[in-house]
Parts: sequence; structure tokens; C-alpha cells
Amino acid sequence: MDFQRLEQILEKECLLNRAEPILVGVSGGPDSLCLMHGLARLRFSLLVVHFDHRLRPESGSDAAFVEVEARRLGLPFLSGSQDVAGFAASQRMSIEEAARVLRYRFLFAQARQHGAQAVAVGHTADDQVETVLLHILRGAGLSGLQGMAYRSIHPDWDERIPLVRPLLSFWRDETTACCSELDLTPLYDPSNQNPAFLRNRLRHELIPYLETYNPQVRRAVWRMSQVLAGDEAVVGLAAAQALQNCLVSRSDTQVKLNIAQLAQMEPGLLRAVLRAAINALLPSLRNVDYSAIERVERFVGAPHAGQVDLVKGLRGFAEAGNLVLQKSDQLGSELSWPSIALSAEIPVPIPGEVDLPLGWRMSTRWVDSADFPVFEAAGAGRSWEAWLDAGQLDAPIFLRPMRPGDRFQPLGLHGHSQKLSDFWINEKLPRRARTTWPLLVCADQILWIPGFRPAEPQRLQKNTRKALYVRLFRVDGSG
Amino acid sequence: MDFQRLEQILEKECLLNRAEPILVGVSGGPDSLCLMHGLARLRFSLLVVHFDHRLRPESGSDAAFVEVEARRLGLPFLSGSQDVAGFAASQRMSIEEAARVLRYRFLFAQARQHGAQAVAVGHTADDQVETVLLHILRGAGLSGLQGMAYRSIHPDWDERIPLVRPLLSFWRDETTACCSELDLTPLYDPSNQNPAFLRNRLRHELIPYLETYNPQVRRAVWRMSQVLAGDEAVVGLAAAQALQNCLVSRSDTQVKLNIAQLAQMEPGLLRAVLRAAINALLPSLRNVDYSAIERVERFVGAPHAGQVDLVKGLRGFAEAGNLVLQKSDQLGSELSWPSIALSAEIPVPIPGEVDLPLGWRMSTRWVDSADFPVFEAAGAGRSWEAWLDAGQLDAPIFLRPMRPGDRFQPLGLHGHSQKLSDFWINEKLPRRARTTWPLLVCADQILWIPGFRPAEPQRLQKNTRKALYVRLFRVDGSG
Repeated sequence: MDFQRLEQILEKECLLNRAEPILVGVSGGPDSLCLMHGLARLRFSLLVVHFDHRLRPESGSDAAFVEVEARRLGLPFLSGSQDVAGFAASQRMSIEEAARVLRYRFLFAQARQHGAQAVAVGHTADDQVETVLLHILRGAGLSGLQGMAYRSIHPDWDERIPLVRPLLSFWRDETTACCSELDLTPLYDPSNQNPAFLRNRLRHELIPYLETYNPQVRRAVWRMSQVLAGDEAVVGLAAAQALQNCLVSRSDTQVKLNIAQLAQMEPGLLRAVLRAAINALLPSLRNVDYSAIERVERFVGAPHAGQVDLVKGLRGFAEAGNLVLQKSDQLGSELSWPSIALSAEIPVPIPGEVDLPLGWRMSTRWVDSADFPVFEAAGAGRSWEAWLDAGQLDAPIFLRPMRPGDRFQPLGLHGHSQKLSDFWINEKLPRRARTTWPLLVCADQILWIPGFRPAEPQRLQKNTRKALYVRLFRVDGSG
Repeated sequence: MDFQRLEQILEKECLLNRAEPILVGVSGGPDSLCLMHGLARLRFSLLVVHFDHRLRPESGSDAAFVEVEARRLGLPFLSGSQDVAGFAASQRMSIEEAARVLRYRFLFAQARQHGAQAVAVGHTADDQVETVLLHILRGAGLSGLQGMAYRSIHPDWDERIPLVRPLLSFWRDETTACCSELDLTPLYDPSNQNPAFLRNRLRHELIPYLETYNPQVRRAVWRMSQVLAGDEAVVGLAAAQALQNCLVSRSDTQVKLNIAQLAQMEPGLLRAVLRAAINALLPSLRNVDYSAIERVERFVGAPHAGQVDLVKGLRGFAEAGNLVLQKSDQLGSELSWPSIALSAEIPVPIPGEVDLPLGWRMSTRWVDSADFPVFEAAGAGRSWEAWLDAGQLDAPIFLRPMRPGDRFQPLGLHGHSQKLSDFWINEKLPRRARTTWPLLVCADQILWIPGFRPAEPQRLQKNTRKALYVRLFRVDGSG
């Protein structure tokens, strides 16, 4: 291993000093073991931390192994443990996502407690390539394509302590070779072979397949991400300047921009400014979905009296020549919850609109595939709009409140059907709102729960040519 | 087919008018046939042109078919024909590349002759996705990732007449459906099924495979390219401004930039400025290779007395505090050609340097895989530097001139070995230069012909860990 190169990266890219401790997360695999040894050899002050995901019966022995390795180097060690599988089930997350959330929460909590200057993890150049390819498959913009950074702040975990990834330019081959040179026998997590994890399929199937097109593809993608990181910085700077120029006012929950100035910008700059404005309100959102940007871009081109739903409960509307981006509780305030009579069965015209109590209105129209949202937007987030596969709609649709025995197959749960009452509990919707919440149904099947999710059978599929676009919104624009 | 959307694109994106004729290239396949009908229906003035690549015995009947279709619409028609396979062989190009070159040469020559406002071709959204994926596999930057444009100038073909691609947002399914609706029976080129063509493998293997990861992957990649085109415009504008600020002088063959100002720029902006400067000298170069930018970036960080080879014969050197980018004949002027004695056998130290006559010097050093060039740079272009697989070098290396019976396996010819004398003829090196041109050899095998190509067996392979980097340069920096 080229420790001189590692030292340069630690100092110039990760901006680490030798005075304050660095918390290094060590699974016991070759990457993190190599990172721990490299940092120790270069005389950085360390705190070694292992997190046990309890996904395998023998996982406890991994912590013991890492502890022995840390002690051999005379380094302080601590570990934590949590039931990832249980958390994943309760939060309806994938195992991978749950593991990531709990691990980083723990690492950053320990970093705060021990006054660490940074949390260091062992992501390699191979991890970077996998990340970038994942983003391409999902249709990312520049911020996704540049992959992970040597040093970054993740406000969800900590506003101040950075996450550093010193091994981003070292290949997995190099960390393995480093372990051999140092006579270390790293742990190999058998779950890294499990093709049920998308990343493993990428690693073991997609990348070797792409290498049949270009044997250097990993290096090509890695360098692409490097170049794009530089381009993203240029775009970010240009956007920040342009945003300043058209900014009318700004608070934690609201950004106001001058529409006339926005409308004069080149499309690329306009989109970058809108992304920057959304990120100012939602700093932990890494990739702003393209279709949200497209909706607000269209709105800037032709402002109207209504509002546009963006991402994560953010909405945009026009007010006195300004575009207002407003952050809000995703369900709105209690007084503004949609609600219909217990006995209601309201036919919904296609295309058309229908008024509901409390100033709510539902609109529907057919859209063809050119206007479908991409993968991520079509996913499982809460939303006041939905796209439903037109091929699955074979009877009139209407709105009604819940009935005893209602079941629902929420999108993103792989077709798993659950009692609607269980769905409400998971979503933490207060009981008083449940009984009159409008449900979009066809025959007796729930197609969409406005504000929440569409049903799995109505999802957009590969061959979907036409979809029903449905939206529930407040007519007065205040919802 | 949504002709209203097509009309909008023709007017707003392709910037076409109804007064001047548009030359539309029609192969007879569903895409170009649909384009011809769409343009005709929307009352644009057309000249229909078919180009026969003569790659199939029955190709002549394609022209007849297109002529019938054009006449049915009352449109003027003309066709041309050339021996693509012969041209490919003589120019050592792939069939695909040769077909492309001859086709566009013909289309643009006809466009000039008939006063066309643009050349229109039928590339679809599917073609766009394939193009972007090809660029990703090869490691492109932003300019490659944004794919093809609705309207673009290609100086190689014409400085003024644009190439327009009105169908870039229509999927192949839509053009096929359009042909059915219009009761047309388009031609299907059997070579579109031939997996020997990389694009066909992408279309029939890679994309369906990627769809197993994300059924919406084509739309995701298409939108990504759209977003990145906007970002590229923002970067381009920022780079143009920054370039103006540090520009000392500029001619057709030389750009001088202030090094101190360059050195103060953020890395991303510096790279964008360097790309812009190189593009000012080489306007037809679409993607500036990353490793060339990296070399000149390093040079800006630490200028030295020598010069850096960039792309296509462009080189950079320092002069009075300026970075000079100089365009030159790729072989230099005759007086500066490298030349060694007929009896010479000059040992080349590794690592080290050795002086040759006329102020030339060869330097060598080991580089590890992090410093390898990417796919495109490692390819078959002429160059004064090369990377040779260290694993293939099992004896001392030295420089000598050619000897009777010398054979060479040029990189990029799939291991095909040819007489060195035939190689010289293909490369059009004047006879008087051949006999004393230095060849880098190991045992009796030619490893590299400086200024031309490395040998196929020495190419970088997937598992190459270490390479010998060799460079031949003029010590006085004037070569």
C-alpha cells in the first residue's frame, strides 16, 4: 500500500490533523482493517469503533476480532450493537438501508461523545464505482454521478463532524494486498456474496459484465466520477451566485425567488438554481428528483394560481411575482387534512376535477410515458400526486373513506398486502384522521391513498404506455 | 405519433424554418421514414437523400424503396453510394466509423450544394441512451454524458450547416407505431442484429440486462443526459468567462494563458478552462481525454522546462509565466523528426533518461494502475508517450532503427501482425524518415514506435498492475 499517497489524501482531501482523535469505523473486513493500520502507521490519533448489525449468529465474534486487532496497535476500542433486522421490519426499510442508518447513527453519536474530528470509513474505489453505477441505473444528476466525497457533511448525522473516506482512490485489490503484507487475516462477511443485496449483484454480476465491453471500465467510471465532481463544483458556484441575484427572502422553511429573473435564465442554470434553493430548505436531500425540478421549471415558465408538489412535502406557489418554495409537514396541519363524509362515494371523472370538503380538489388526467416520473420519484415516498398504470384501471374510480376489512398493498413492499388499519399505524396517522381520509378506489381495490402511497399493482411498469395522473390539492393554495 | 410535440421541437430546439429546404437523410428504416413523413406533414421544405453503404448485396434496392416513398409525398430525392468496406480497410477504421464518416460527408456535401438550412437525421431516444451508455463505458466527461443534441455544428462536416435530430425524445417504439399508423412498411437493416457491432450488443444485450436492475433504466438514462446537457451549458459558460480572464493571446494554432491565474482556480473550473482552451484549438474534438487534462493540470501546478503532450498533436509548455498550448503537425516538422544512427542500439534505463540526436530525449518510469490512462487514451491514436504492460517486459529494452524483416503488431488491429514497411506506408511517413526512426524494442520485438503506436501485446490489460511509461520529447521544448 502506498502510505505516502494515503497521507496526502488524509491531509489535503480529508483535511485531518494529528491533534484530535479520528473515529474509525472498522467492520474487520480488509478495507477498514487496512484503513485502521494506515491511519495508525501515519500517527493519527484514533478511536476504533465496531458496530454489530446482529445479522448473523456469529457476528459477536467479529467485534472480538476487531478489538484484538485494535489492542495490538495500542488503540482504544469500543463497540455497539443493534437489531438491524428488527429495525428494518419496523421501519419498512431494506436491510441494507437499516444497517446503514443504525451504523452511522451509532458512529456519529460516539464521535460527538469522544470529541472526534471526523468519522473515517473504509470505502474504496470499487465502492465508488458501484455507487456511481447505482446512481446511473436510477437516473441521477451530477450530484449522484460524482459519487462519494473524500470529506462530506451529512446533516442527518451531524451538522459539524465530517464523514471522511480516505481509501476512495484505492482499489479493493490494494486493501487486500495491504492486509497480506501486514500479515493480517481480515474477516470476510458472507453477506457480501448474497445476490439479494443490489450492491452485491452490481459487484459480482454487473461490473464483470461491463468489463466484457471495456476491461478498464472500473477505472473509466471512477475517473468519470472525479471529473464530474469538479464540474458539479463549478455548477454549484454558478448556481449559488445566480440564486443570490434572484433571492427575495429566505427563512428555514421558505425561500422566495423573483420569477421574472428565474424565467430569463438558461435552462441549465435555472435548474441548478432550483436545485440549490430546494437544497437550502432540505440540506440532507442529496439528489433532488428530476421530475420535481421539471414541475417547478414548468411552473416558472407558466405560473398559475395553484401549487406544485415538489419533494418531501416541499411545495411551490406564486405570490406577488415571486416563486415561494415552502417546507411543510408532509400531512399539512391537522385542520387542513382532507376529509370526506363517512357515507361518501364520490365518482372521480377522468380526465377532470372533483371538489371535496375543506377546499380540497382532486384532478385527474391521462399522461403518456414521456411525462412519467423516473424510478426514484415513482417510488415509495409520501406524495399528494401519483401515477397509476392505466392498463390496470378497468372500472370507474371513486373516492370513499375506509371500510372494515379494507386491505392495501403499498407500493414498495413487493406486493405484500396488509390491513389498512395496520398501514395507518405504521404511517403514524392519528386515529381521528383515519376514518374520513379519502381513498381512491376502483371496484373494491384501493388504488391510492392521497398523501401516502399508491398501490403496488398500479405501479408503472416497463411496458406501461399510459398512466392516470392524479393529484389532491387545496384550491386556495394554502394546504 | 405526437406531431404537435415534433413541431415544437423542430421550431424551438432544432430552430428550423419553413422557408429554406432541410436535407433529410433517410435509410428507409422506421426512424428516418417516420421523420420524413413528420417533416412533410408539418409542411417543411424537404430534400430526401439516401446513402448506400454497399455493405449488403441488396442495398441498392433500399435506395429504390426510399425514392418511391419520397415521390409518393411529392418530395425531391437523390442518392449516393460508396464502398464503405473498402474505405474502412484503407483507413484502418471500423466499418461503423467508416460508414458514419462517408455518410455524413455525402449528406453535408449535398446540403451545401442544395442550399439546405440543416441536415436532419432520425436518431431516437433509444439511440441517445445507447450513445450515453457507450460514453459511460469509455469513461466520458459531461460532454459525452449529455449525448447527442437536437441541433449541433460539426466543424468536420460543415462550419455553418447544423445537424439536427428532431426525434431525440421519441422512442423507437413510437417511430415503429407511427409507420404502422401511416401504413408504411419500413426496411429493417439486418446488420442491426449483428452483435459484432458494439452498438448492437448494447441494444440487444446490455440494455435488456440493465432493465433487470431498473425496468425504467432507458428513461432514467435519457433524463440524466437531458439534465447533464443543462449542467454542461452552465460549466461551459463559467469556463468561457474564466478563460477570457486568463487569456494572454490566441491564434488558430496557439493559445497562451496566464499560469498564475490558472493556478488559483478551483480544480473543476481549471479543468473546464483547459478543456475550453483545447477545444478552441481543436473544435472538432468532442471529448477531451481526461488524462490529457490531468497532465496539463499537473503542469499548471508545477510548471517545468519540458513540455506535455496532450491530444491530437497538441502540446503544452511554459513560456514567460504563460502556459502555451500549441497545435502542431503530429509528427512535427521534418527537421525535428527523431532520428538515430543506422547502427545504433541504445540501451534505455528503467527508470531513467537517455539523450538522442537532435535534442530528443527518452524518459521512462514505472507507473501503477492509478496513473494509467483510460480506455480512449490508451487506444490507437498517434502519441509521443505510451504505457506498456510491465508484465510483458522480460529483458532489457533499447532503441534501434528498423531492420529488414521487422514486423509489428500495432495496437488496435486485434493482434494482426504486419511488415514494418507496410505500417510506414499506411502511416504515410516519408521514406527518408523511416530508416533512422527510433524503435523501442525488447529482445527482437518492437514495443513502441514513438510518435505512432505501441504494440498490441504490450497493451494495458484488465489485470495490469504496473506499466512502463515511456515518453520521447524535445529537450528544448520546441519539438
